[in-house]
Amino acid sequence: MTARPVLFALPGHEAAAGRLAAHEAHDAGRLQLDRFPEGESRVRLLTPVEGRRVDLFCSLARPEPQLAGLLLAAGAARQQGAAHVRLITPYLPYMRQDIAFAPGEGISARIFADLVSASFDSVLTVDPHLHRIARLSDIFTIPARALGSAPLLAQWVTAHVACPLIVGPDGESRQWAAEVARLSGAPLMVLAKDRRGLDDVTVTGADSGAWAQALEGATPVLVDDIAGTGGTLVAAAEALARAGFARPVGVIVHAFLDAAASARVGQHFSALVSTDSVTHPTNAIALAPLLAEAAAGDG
Amino acid sequence: MTARPVLFALPGHEAAAGRLAAHEAHDAGRLQLDRFPEGESRVRLLTPVEGRRVDLFCSLARPEPQLAGLLLAAGAARQQGAAHVRLITPYLPYMRQDIAFAPGEGISARIFADLVSASFDSVLTVDPHLHRIARLSDIFTIPARALGSAPLLAQWVTAHVACPLIVGPDGESRQWAAEVARLSGAPLMVLAKDRRGLDDVTVTGADSGAWAQALEGATPVLVDDIAGTGGTLVAAAEALARAGFARPVGVIVHAFLDAAASARVGQHFSALVSTDSVTHPTNAIALAPLLAEAAAGDG
Repeated sequence: MTARPVLFALPGHEAAAGRLAAHEAHDAGRLQLDRFPEGESRVRLLTPVEGRRVDLFCSLARPEPQLAGLLLAAGAARQQGAAHVRLITPYLPYMRQDIAFAPGEGISARIFADLVSASFDSVLTVDPHLHRIARLSDIFTIPARALGSAPLLAQWVTAHVACPLIVGPDGESRQWAAEVARLSGAPLMVLAKDRRGLDDVTVTGADSGAWAQALEGATPVLVDDIAGTGGTLVAAAEALARAGFARPVGVIVHAFLDAAASARVGQHFSALVSTDSVTHPTNAIALAPLLAEAAAGDG
Repeated sequence: MTARPVLFALPGHEAAAGRLAAHEAHDAGRLQLDRFPEGESRVRLLTPVEGRRVDLFCSLARPEPQLAGLLLAAGAARQQGAAHVRLITPYLPYMRQDIAFAPGEGISARIFADLVSASFDSVLTVDPHLHRIARLSDIFTIPARALGSAPLLAQWVTAHVACPLIVGPDGESRQWAAEVARLSGAPLMVLAKDRRGLDDVTVTGADSGAWAQALEGATPVLVDDIAGTGGTLVAAAEALARAGFARPVGVIVHAFLDAAASARVGQHFSALVSTDSVTHPTNAIALAPLLAEAAAGDG
């Protein structure tokens, strides 16, 4: 039997890492991160790593204050002879900056991928926002594996919503919404990006007859990968309201809504839930089972 | 004639970069750094860099909030076809973490050097704190040049202190203090590290006769590379006071003293000055002439 990897949590991620460790795919490691008065961090791995696989756990939501500590931890593991250093981040940042939208703009997704590829031996993440970049292997030079949270989202919907109609608020959300619809056996509706109203709606997964039936008593479940300002969610909920639907449920993979945005969005939803990829008051779906299975499989 | 490099300042470093640009070794570039609500930065180079040498100016005092922006700017310059991307940082961080002081500790100096070596083509800095690592080339895999500020410090001392006695507060400071003494033609005194008093003082650069003379009316000038808490400066000033010296002048390369530490140190000194490597109220010595000369020489 292969030895289990040692799991280290970066500060602030101990709770989510603990849920992952509970699945027994790892040995628990202890990491200490100090900061000197001049603003330089120092990392200490209190669990020996020589010859072992190391998993560094850190959600890179709001990545920048964490970046130095993470890179120092990876470097320390390498200096101390780790056999393999993997980044486990349930949120992979910068992926929306996948093109120069204006002249002179850096393509941050590629720069970040280069940085991670230089410091780690592999990456494990959940539902990265891939749009113009088709696959993580297009930008990472190390093995980079993207897990899908759709099975966990579908499981939550099946358990909590009686008659769900899965709704993607825009075209980019189709990939997530379609998978959740398929796995929960629910019909799918994808709203048009410009959201001028339900005239723009594309409906798939239901013919017109079934569609009319689904409307009766259906609870729309808006599914999206990232919620930032909440503007997309609100616009989609308003479009649904105008069409006579019940107040929707919102299921988000990566929830970044601040308190004001949460309050604004909350008025339009009967419930709003998210995975724990980003620590947030709406967290209801732990990614630990998904991450543990993948982490153990690679062991 | 070789084209001059384009100089970009990272946000917060515009003033020091402006002083550097005034020496006409560079063409001025404009850089825009935005941050998305989710905490991800985006860099835009508003001056074309294709085929040109790029100098990114950023003091890495308190490096961690600046790290992502700096790496994104370097990556953007490379993506846009810069011929060479150089980091100009008058303060090079992490150099004091040059050994694992405790088991499991990362050697941050080496990790940081790896990171910079992967993202830049060369580095220009001033008086890095090298102790157990003898040369920057021991840790950087790209050309890394360390300029000495001693000529500028000596120039300041000569212009502002009538009868200086250069004092190194401890053995590690000898390299800076000795050079300033030599260049300003002043005697040198290096205090012992444990600072139990002037019994521990090593005096060089003055025989006992000249020494006794030098004491008469001499103004001690304490020279050190980094002031953090100010503890070393205060202890050295107290030792000098016990020996009957006048209140010393302090000349620091990299000044990190916070307001409380500055006040505490200030009581023991008649004046405290520093280079502008770290933006600080004591800044009195601009490094721009030194950096400009080196930057132009490499062009």
